[in-house]
Amino acid sequence: MTENQSRRSFLQNLGVGLGTTAAAFTVPSLVSIPESKSKYEGKKLGIALVGLGSYAKNQLAVGLEQTPNCYLAGIVTGTPSKAEEWMKKYNIPKKNVYNYQTFDQIADNKDIDIVYVVLPNSMHHEYVIRAAKAGKHVMCEKPMANTVKECQEMIKACKDAGVQLGVGYRMHFEPFTKEVIRMSREKVFGNVKFINSNFGFTIGDPTQWRLKKPMAGGGPLMDVGIYCVQGSRYITGKEPLAVTAQFGPITDPTRFKDVEESLSWQFDFPDAVTVNGFTSYKTNIEQLYITYEKGFVQLSPAYSYGPIKGRTSQGELNLPIVHHQANMLEAIAREFLETKMFPSHISGEEGLKDMKYLTAIYEAARTGKKIKLA
Amino acid sequence: MTENQSRRSFLQNLGVGLGTTAAAFTVPSLVSIPESKSKYEGKKLGIALVGLGSYAKNQLAVGLEQTPNCYLAGIVTGTPSKAEEWMKKYNIPKKNVYNYQTFDQIADNKDIDIVYVVLPNSMHHEYVIRAAKAGKHVMCEKPMANTVKECQEMIKACKDAGVQLGVGYRMHFEPFTKEVIRMSREKVFGNVKFINSNFGFTIGDPTQWRLKKPMAGGGPLMDVGIYCVQGSRYITGKEPLAVTAQFGPITDPTRFKDVEESLSWQFDFPDAVTVNGFTSYKTNIEQLYITYEKGFVQLSPAYSYGPIKGRTSQGELNLPIVHHQANMLEAIAREFLETKMFPSHISGEEGLKDMKYLTAIYEAARTGKKIKLA
Repeated sequence: MTENQSRRSFLQNLGVGLGTTAAAFTVPSLVSIPESKSKYEGKKLGIALVGLGSYAKNQLAVGLEQTPNCYLAGIVTGTPSKAEEWMKKYNIPKKNVYNYQTFDQIADNKDIDIVYVVLPNSMHHEYVIRAAKAGKHVMCEKPMANTVKECQEMIKACKDAGVQLGVGYRMHFEPFTKEVIRMSREKVFGNVKFINSNFGFTIGDPTQWRLKKPMAGGGPLMDVGIYCVQGSRYITGKEPLAVTAQFGPITDPTRFKDVEESLSWQFDFPDAVTVNGFTSYKTNIEQLYITYEKGFVQLSPAYSYGPIKGRTSQGELNLPIVHHQANMLEAIAREFLETKMFPSHISGEEGLKDMKYLTAIYEAARTGKKIKLA
Repeated sequence: MTENQSRRSFLQNLGVGLGTTAAAFTVPSLVSIPESKSKYEGKKLGIALVGLGSYAKNQLAVGLEQTPNCYLAGIVTGTPSKAEEWMKKYNIPKKNVYNYQTFDQIADNKDIDIVYVVLPNSMHHEYVIRAAKAGKHVMCEKPMANTVKECQEMIKACKDAGVQLGVGYRMHFEPFTKEVIRMSREKVFGNVKFINSNFGFTIGDPTQWRLKKPMAGGGPLMDVGIYCVQGSRYITGKEPLAVTAQFGPITDPTRFKDVEESLSWQFDFPDAVTVNGFTSYKTNIEQLYITYEKGFVQLSPAYSYGPIKGRTSQGELNLPIVHHQANMLEAIAREFLETKMFPSHISGEEGLKDMKYLTAIYEAARTGKKIKLA
């Protein structure tokens, strides 16, 4: 089992959520995508995946087999054997296969509408900018990059090139998450008062890039804590005002030479909403618990590939179980076919904001000070 | 509606827990108390309540009507009309009725085995010590007092007088809580990894003593946050090593002139267990969420008068719904009849430990520093 398989398998089989037993993962159907509108008939956006790790292979490529309005048109990989395998499996013509040296020639390839960067975090900056310079619209995995400055440069490069930039924030398209956002914004239970947002898992292979700060930019906060930060923003629809944070103890110095093992933080949001977050590479936890004036909502699992489960003070939430990546990519494709833009809530600016908050959390934890954000 | 009625009604009707709607409170049956053992036949400890506020009236006195081995034998009140009312209702002889001036004469009253102090926090110290000097065993409501020094003096007074001292920590006797303690100690889901422990409610009458620091010793942390602190200790069976904490913003300066409106804290426990807590007088929340190596347990409601609800990663917890105060008082009575001692997990030493942790949380919040506890 490779390091990535180990992590991704965990995210699929988490079994730490609401009443979830560690049952086998079942591939969800794409029930939340309505029939393709006739105006898109026959039109499919071509997507090229850059980096063929586990997320590209087991989530994005699988998702792209289910999407009416976009498809896997090309690949970029440094491993010739992977190129062969993918060409066969997905019927990809050789002219749509690149390596990291030939990547920039993608500019001349009319089959490719969108480049999706699925590389380790430290490589997002370079490959998003090269994709933009090649005139391609770009999707980038989260976290958007390793630093605020990198995010700003990526946004500028895409703007200068006149291409769209999106961050792979799949939860924005997921039905339980969308319903909780709706309930929060429409004040179904009154105003939001307090949020617990936790995401952590037990990391495997001690040699993997996620444990190397130069490649990952940080530890679990960069990898999965970012979901909790995003979560508190999409639930409240507001930006945090200040943050305090604390590193947890290092119990495993072999794995955690470079990055934090666990981390807690506290956001002050407008309207006196407190958000207490926690992330870890040594604890299996995944929950979003929101208290309102007149009730509560809980998602658990809240952030992994599903099935997401939810309940409120009124009872269980029964909503469609979707394939997260198919669902996201199809929504992006349709928005683009209709408006020539990516959805605004997954924009580079959103990725940049999260990066500022992640950076502030690290600063708060390092200094012990409350960091003002607004 | 008086201030206390308002608060106590809230605790009964919380409706912020697991799948709880704000349904009418139903009086629970005392199903968890087994039939009285024959060796106690006919033996009933006499309990005198000191202070006849809402908790004494609606919880303790009601509970004492259901307890085979203890009963309401006497009262101490400064309000003659209350004395009349209670004497009639509970058939209490005039000789077992005291006011705050005559209280010390209780020393000569053979009907009274245990004095239960249910006064505002600032009065616990004086009345526990007076009860001890009168040679009576003493139960004291939580928080045990307003300061560590007061707790130490109360413990010493009881020791010097050779009487038992207990704090009204009713959750230790509650079936869901006991089951979660068992599952944690027996490692049913492996070791505890992380805990969220939250308890808050929306406070009513702005003139009530709970909002006055001299009487209450502090705000929601002293009143309900103490349950979260206790909770993290009885779940782990360990003592915290260090704490950080943060006051929430004051949005209601009329009510919160004197005490905090809300408060978050983070305990480092042994074995790298992080406990993130939150308490508030402006947010309805009540949950204990424990993540283990291989699953989770959630109680919500977790701390109010019930019914407590619980679930684990294996499914719902189905356990008896009890009257918390009857259940606690009967357990204490039986332990005392058998051993001449109160149960050790509600001892004055336990109350003192909690007071040290509450004091450290306030210090951490005030200074912004991490406070070492061990």
